Amino acid sequence: MRIGELSRKSGVPVPTIKYYVREGLLPAGMLTSPNQARYDDGHERRLRLIRALLDVGGMPLSAIAEVLEAVDDPEQPVHMVLGAAAIRITPEEPEDAGPESAEAREEVAALLARRGWRVGPDNPAGRSLAGVLAALHRAGHGGFVELLDLYAEAAESVASADLDYVRRRVAREDLVESVVVGTVLGEAMFGALRRLAHVDASARAYEGGEGEEGAGRK
Amino acid sequence: MRIGELSRKSGVPVPTIKYYVREGLLPAGMLTSPNQARYDDGHERRLRLIRALLDVGGMPLSAIAEVLEAVDDPEQPVHMVLGAAAIRITPEEPEDAGPESAEAREEVAALLARRGWRVGPDNPAGRSLAGVLAALHRAGHGGFVELLDLYAEAAESVASADLDYVRRRVAREDLVESVVVGTVLGEAMFGALRRLAHVDASARAYEGGEGEEGAGRK
Repeated sequence: MRIGELSRKSGVPVPTIKYYVREGLLPAGMLTSPNQARYDDGHERRLRLIRALLDVGGMPLSAIAEVLEAVDDPEQPVHMVLGAAAIRITPEEPEDAGPESAEAREEVAALLARRGWRVGPDNPAGRSLAGVLAALHRAGHGGFVELLDLYAEAAESVASADLDYVRRRVAREDLVESVVVGTVLGEAMFGALRRLAHVDASARAYEGGEGEEGAGRK
Repeated sequence: MRIGELSRKSGVPVPTIKYYVREGLLPAGMLTSPNQARYDDGHERRLRLIRALLDVGGMPLSAIAEVLEAVDDPEQPVHMVLGAAAIRITPEEPEDAGPESAEAREEVAALLARRGWRVGPDNPAGRSLAGVLAALHRAGHGGFVELLDLYAEAAESVASADLDYVRRRVAREDLVESVVVGTVLGEAMFGALRRLAHVDASARAYEGGEGEEGAGRK
């Protein structure tokens, strides 16, 4: 297809497509005449991935370039590519240096060991978790940390469904795209559901009898 | 106790305590002499709540004043007070007006009916969820919406644990404080756990054999 059709199909304006080619994010089309190039499904897929990393993942172009490099490197095993994408959409949090943070890091290490999760000790999500646990201790809500295993169990079931969704893809671009979409939008989806479930649980606990919607749990 | 001790115990500077009293967020102490007032445990609890709403919930003082009004109104049933706090820490999202949003709102209504959740049709978390579903459809990942019920089940189990944690409190201030802490820090905790569980699930799916940590699931 010509660049105009690629633009229509992907929703990305022609000048932006040309910019991505110049920046090395998108391979150039195959020249069919001195000033005309042909693009294929691979270009369309790559454009979709760039837009997902940009719009959904909120990633800067430099980080997108790194992820694409991992996608294009045939030596990189799939789970390393997925990990590279996931790490780059996770905002790096400042190191927590309070007295509670050593305790929190130990709690995270113990949790990983207890559940047998294969996660490196320096994973950014592990550092985020330690930061949250330290904040709970500081706020005088260390008791909330007792819910860690119940939360972890729920996270396991959600993550394994996420992975099943991702594994339906074959092309590495599509795999990475689903990871980004699933991680970012999935997190927002779970957050909204949890707040809805709070409303319901609180109505049941404190209201007594049927709620204003009058619907019982089926 | 005197204001200096209240400040030490709560970690809130004396001028800030005086400011909260002037703004009506904290009741004045009982005057024991023309220029000395005595404060009690109720003041300390109220200060903790204000700090939690401010620091953890990120709420503006005007919203904090509204929540405190609900806390202080003996006519307000507990679950309405908790709801008032929860709604005010949820950022209001702009109404989604794309063609996908009508479909998404119907998906949310169907989910609430299916699970028998007692949630009003205009709950902000329901609108957030509809926004996420619309974004998934727009990104060409409508298939991810199939995971909705599995996510909802995980959210139910987490929310009911959250509520058990909250219900250990007796004073309304403490109840509201736990809701704020649990909602905000609990969301961050789950997000980090889900990302860790992704790393593990992906290593198991794509790596084969034992991971670099060499630990099997126990």
